[in-house]
Amino acid sequence: MKIVLSLGGSVLAPRDPERVGAHAEVIEDLVNEGHSVGVVVGGGTIAREYIHTARALGANEIELDQLGIDTTRVNARLLIAALSERAVTSPATDYETAGEALRRDEVAVMGGIAPGQTTDAVSAALAEYANADLLVYATSVPGVYSADPAADDDAHRFEELSATELVDVIADIEMTAGASAPVDLLAAKIIERSGVRTVVLDGTDPARVARVVTSGDHDGTDIVP
Amino acid sequence: MKIVLSLGGSVLAPRDPERVGAHAEVIEDLVNEGHSVGVVVGGGTIAREYIHTARALGANEIELDQLGIDTTRVNARLLIAALSERAVTSPATDYETAGEALRRDEVAVMGGIAPGQTTDAVSAALAEYANADLLVYATSVPGVYSADPAADDDAHRFEELSATELVDVIADIEMTAGASAPVDLLAAKIIERSGVRTVVLDGTDPARVARVVTSGDHDGTDIVP
Amino acid sequence: MKIVLSLGGSVLAPRDPERVGAHAEVIEDLVNEGHSVGVVVGGGTIAREYIHTARALGANEIELDQLGIDTTRVNARLLIAALSERAVTSPATDYETAGEALRRDEVAVMGGIAPGQTTDAVSAALAEYANADLLVYATSVPGVYSADPAADDDAHRFEELSATELVDVIADIEMTAGASAPVDLLAAKIIERSGVRTVVLDGTDPARVARVVTSGDHDGTDIVP
Amino acid sequence: MKIVLSLGGSVLAPRDPERVGAHAEVIEDLVNEGHSVGVVVGGGTIAREYIHTARALGANEIELDQLGIDTTRVNARLLIAALSERAVTSPATDYETAGEALRRDEVAVMGGIAPGQTTDAVSAALAEYANADLLVYATSVPGVYSADPAADDDAHRFEELSATELVDVIADIEMTAGASAPVDLLAAKIIERSGVRTVVLDGTDPARVARVVTSGDHDGTDIVP
Amino acid sequence: MKIVLSLGGSVLAPRDPERVGAHAEVIEDLVNEGHSVGVVVGGGTIAREYIHTARALGANEIELDQLGIDTTRVNARLLIAALSERAVTSPATDYETAGEALRRDEVAVMGGIAPGQTTDAVSAALAEYANADLLVYATSVPGVYSADPAADDDAHRFEELSATELVDVIADIEMTAGASAPVDLLAAKIIERSGVRTVVLDGTDPARVARVVTSGDHDGTDIVP
Amino acid sequence: MKIVLSLGGSVLAPRDPERVGAHAEVIEDLVNEGHSVGVVVGGGTIAREYIHTARALGANEIELDQLGIDTTRVNARLLIAALSERAVTSPATDYETAGEALRRDEVAVMGGIAPGQTTDAVSAALAEYANADLLVYATSVPGVYSADPAADDDAHRFEELSATELVDVIADIEMTAGASAPVDLLAAKIIERSGVRTVVLDGTDPARVARVVTSGDHDGTDIVP
Repeated sequence: MKIVLSLGGSVLAPRDPERVGAHAEVIEDLVNEGHSVGVVVGGGTIAREYIHTARALGANEIELDQLGIDTTRVNARLLIAALSERAVTSPATDYETAGEALRRDEVAVMGGIAPGQTTDAVSAALAEYANADLLVYATSVPGVYSADPAADDDAHRFEELSATELVDVIADIEMTAGASAPVDLLAAKIIERSGVRTVVLDGTDPARVARVVTSGDHDGTDIVP
Repeated sequence: MKIVLSLGGSVLAPRDPERVGAHAEVIEDLVNEGHSVGVVVGGGTIAREYIHTARALGANEIELDQLGIDTTRVNARLLIAALSERAVTSPATDYETAGEALRRDEVAVMGGIAPGQTTDAVSAALAEYANADLLVYATSVPGVYSADPAADDDAHRFEELSATELVDVIADIEMTAGASAPVDLLAAKIIERSGVRTVVLDGTDPARVARVVTSGDHDGTDIVP
Repeated sequence: MKIVLSLGGSVLAPRDPERVGAHAEVIEDLVNEGHSVGVVVGGGTIAREYIHTARALGANEIELDQLGIDTTRVNARLLIAALSERAVTSPATDYETAGEALRRDEVAVMGGIAPGQTTDAVSAALAEYANADLLVYATSVPGVYSADPAADDDAHRFEELSATELVDVIADIEMTAGASAPVDLLAAKIIERSGVRTVVLDGTDPARVARVVTSGDHDGTDIVP
Repeated sequence: MKIVLSLGGSVLAPRDPERVGAHAEVIEDLVNEGHSVGVVVGGGTIAREYIHTARALGANEIELDQLGIDTTRVNARLLIAALSERAVTSPATDYETAGEALRRDEVAVMGGIAPGQTTDAVSAALAEYANADLLVYATSVPGVYSADPAADDDAHRFEELSATELVDVIADIEMTAGASAPVDLLAAKIIERSGVRTVVLDGTDPARVARVVTSGDHDGTDIVP
Repeated sequence: MKIVLSLGGSVLAPRDPERVGAHAEVIEDLVNEGHSVGVVVGGGTIAREYIHTARALGANEIELDQLGIDTTRVNARLLIAALSERAVTSPATDYETAGEALRRDEVAVMGGIAPGQTTDAVSAALAEYANADLLVYATSVPGVYSADPAADDDAHRFEELSATELVDVIADIEMTAGASAPVDLLAAKIIERSGVRTVVLDGTDPARVARVVTSGDHDGTDIVP
Repeated sequence: MKIVLSLGGSVLAPRDPERVGAHAEVIEDLVNEGHSVGVVVGGGTIAREYIHTARALGANEIELDQLGIDTTRVNARLLIAALSERAVTSPATDYETAGEALRRDEVAVMGGIAPGQTTDAVSAALAEYANADLLVYATSVPGVYSADPAADDDAHRFEELSATELVDVIADIEMTAGASAPVDLLAAKIIERSGVRTVVLDGTDPARVARVVTSGDHDGTDIVP
């Protein structure tokens, strides 16, 4: 199976060797079982720290995005350092290079690509580009909710959504000030158009990623094409 | 004044030397009047031809985007060939390089940046990055309409919209199957967040671009921050 | 067998999905039969359109060449999009990268390299660099003629030429105003020096390329070392 | 005066907008006074965090260096975001590019260059390459000490050292397990060979950098050629 | 005046500091007099040594060309090291970059560009690209001869040739086994098409280059458009 | 076994096809026996010639280093031309690219990386990065000596040294004016930290490299971790 794994920066947890190591181990296991794996790593806390400082100093959003992208690439390099020789040696900065690694059965690892796009969208685009069988968003929340669970007691997690429903749900959430979706709107639209099966789950425990790939089981949200 | 000009591929008209020359002349004139000009060129007919063929052959959307980006860069190089020595010598492929050219009072010219983003969005992002005073979309339609004027007799052109209204209008249009907006949603959101004054106008006559910069007059749609 | 295929831009026909698809299929078939294939794609109509406009606007020949090279690379990317995962993911821009792809049994695809050289010459150079067994020029004419067949009724097609004779014939044609050779002089000289067996044929029907590789039969011109 | 400023990562303090802003302001002031300024930014806490995790996961020293270099470049980009349009738009990755910026009276900003070298050494090399008049190490300690002041009560700060004495002092410190010098041995050797006047001072207060440039006064250590 | 200087590798003489220094001084003087100078450096003895070894080891012509190009770039870097800060910091590898340096009144320095072209041709192409007023070939022979002066007593130097005559003379020389022209055929054709005034002279004494620019006097061959 | 071979420029002898060919043959033989080989090529005589000229003309040490690095890369390309298709097609310019070639069982070939580091240090760093089993320094002297054998009659060759002893010996030699060590201090420190088994031997006869790999025998100096 060809899998694209979107690994949030907070989920990777660059300051926690055990967590990073556990993610690397899951990826290695999947490769050893014959799967092909591409990983897109997000920015997380460290990216937010840089962005916070730069924003306070008057940087514009494009500069902030570029700082964020740089940080996702450091995170990606950290994951590469934790992976065996089956992985690429440095983060890919475009889809072609990542796609080439996948064709050679190497673990492709990348961060952000260009300002104006999150790594959510990059993940969906890589899945589309590489004709992945499964796209897994390992996020810090347990799936897609009807509303922000922290702010709204009635918020419930969707067990399954069609890709078109996902687009609607995300569009709604993005219109609510302060609310944040586990996957952004551009990503949702790419998922809808590509028809790649997608799962959004709580990735803080890396074992959940292994489980969804090998058995299909998970406690997150299934996005069915 | 610092201006970012979004020049649609159909507006540039690569097969029509007179049109290309007229656009180049307007840009030169603006520079000679002391303005600083960055241009983002779109794909137009030739991009659509490549994309049509590739789609028929089963290419995915990321590959199509990449073909489109390549074509925008050929268009950009054509415009550069028509400009005097005040322009950069080759299309910029990131905002930093374009921004550097602007700082040196060169005409910055670029095409697309990365899959998943149109040159509409790149234009808005360059305007934000470079702190432009004015963003002009020279498109093949005369402004932003309430609906698709080709399909709906009641469609009317907005003379003025706030950036937030623009986002709403575009979001509505994008939800209507078959309809196309003169500026896409990501661009609209960047315009909203950056607060750059923006004009959407019919750019098939390059004189209109000169007019809006020098006098502020135009028959298009004003997006006010 | 290691083959370099020079695919004229007009022969590839970027606006005709069927033609592009047929070329891609022939290449895939050759690879499946165990051949190693490098393809150099030319500029064709679209390149000529850009060059026509730029020339009318006063661009110099180096700028025109660069526009042409850009277009050959878009054509090359289109062919890549039509090929299966056995091909490279983006056009090579130097011989080393193309050569590396061939060593890994990938289909190498490239366009032009640098101003002052046509893709005819790039094809011959790639054949020399990669020690190809066969170089096929799939052009829009059926072979090498003694004179321009459109202008001269006595023009006849050569069935076979030594590489040295080819150089002489091409040198003569290039001195005739208005005449154009199916292969340019620099290419002919590289063929002569490298000793790679070469066939010039009408490539508008992709099946002819398959036929010359698998059976050696063709209705074009054989250049024997 | 042409100045190269080595700004330790901990001194820049990427999580503290005020500190970063104060450093940017000092640099701007120097430029406004007519000085030419090149800045080399170190890794600091964030680099150490990445390196700590990667080392725990078995990365080798070259991989750790590469992670560190990446982080110095994010720090450099943060400083760029805080600087005005007089600075380069992205971190230089070699001396030639940094040198070119200095020639154009832009503030050159860079991080690390290659594994096996600290930003201490890069700073000294940039000073040598650009024929700087003054090299300032803004570190987290107040100068060069005879021993580690934290471990040895008899440690005293040198007010002045010849470059050759600096090499000896640093060589001694590097042989002491656990001790760390404010400037490493390779940097000291480059300082010795280049003969650039150098000051090592406590840079946590950016005003000290301004003071040493404008008046020559400081409470650190003077390295005289 | 905008000048492109083609400096043969043997003329530059990388092992002779005095000669290299004298060439650098002439270039600096021209710049100080207000001229704009682009220099294309050839390979010379060192390139021939590398090529001789590689040919003996079975390298093909494209590999030999690449070795030659690499060496021209080292020669170019040597010349840069001898020039003042008015020159670029590293050799340009395409015409756009060289052209940009010229626009900024920097001395552009480059070596070869791509296999299949000598630095003779690169010089002519840079002159064409940059719309130079004068192209000077500083070679190891005193001009263009009717035949190889070493082999033929009747060989005489042309004082003046039209560009079209130059093409004919060079074409004749290239057909004579063993003979070598001071400028190759591709270069001659580019000179013919571009109409740039060209002088071929003995450049072993750098003062001759200064003389032809400042006074128009020389003992070489004038190629008039 | 994974081997990194440090091939001094004088040992490679670019002007001597037989010597270059013999080195290439040894490397091919090792690959055919199943070993994985990375080669780092030094500058040698030609680098020294360029550096001598540039120093006489006032170039600074960073410029000299850059000239040296360029030359090591030409040397590396020469070796590549002499190797079969099992080698990379162009010299790697960073450890990641070289490491990737090794993973694909290609012969990785590289020269210098960045100013401030010799190819001695690059060799040790590549060995560390790639987790090599053996690092062989093929130098122009027969091993590590207690003093400069040319200057001191009592100088004796060490048969075996611990890596820590190596660092001390080299540090001593580097402090002696005029003396030169077969391996520099930075390299020695990287060897010490990485624990890679290292042999320093006279590489003018390539057979010695083959011998130490296949049998462990040599007449040089063993550096044991």
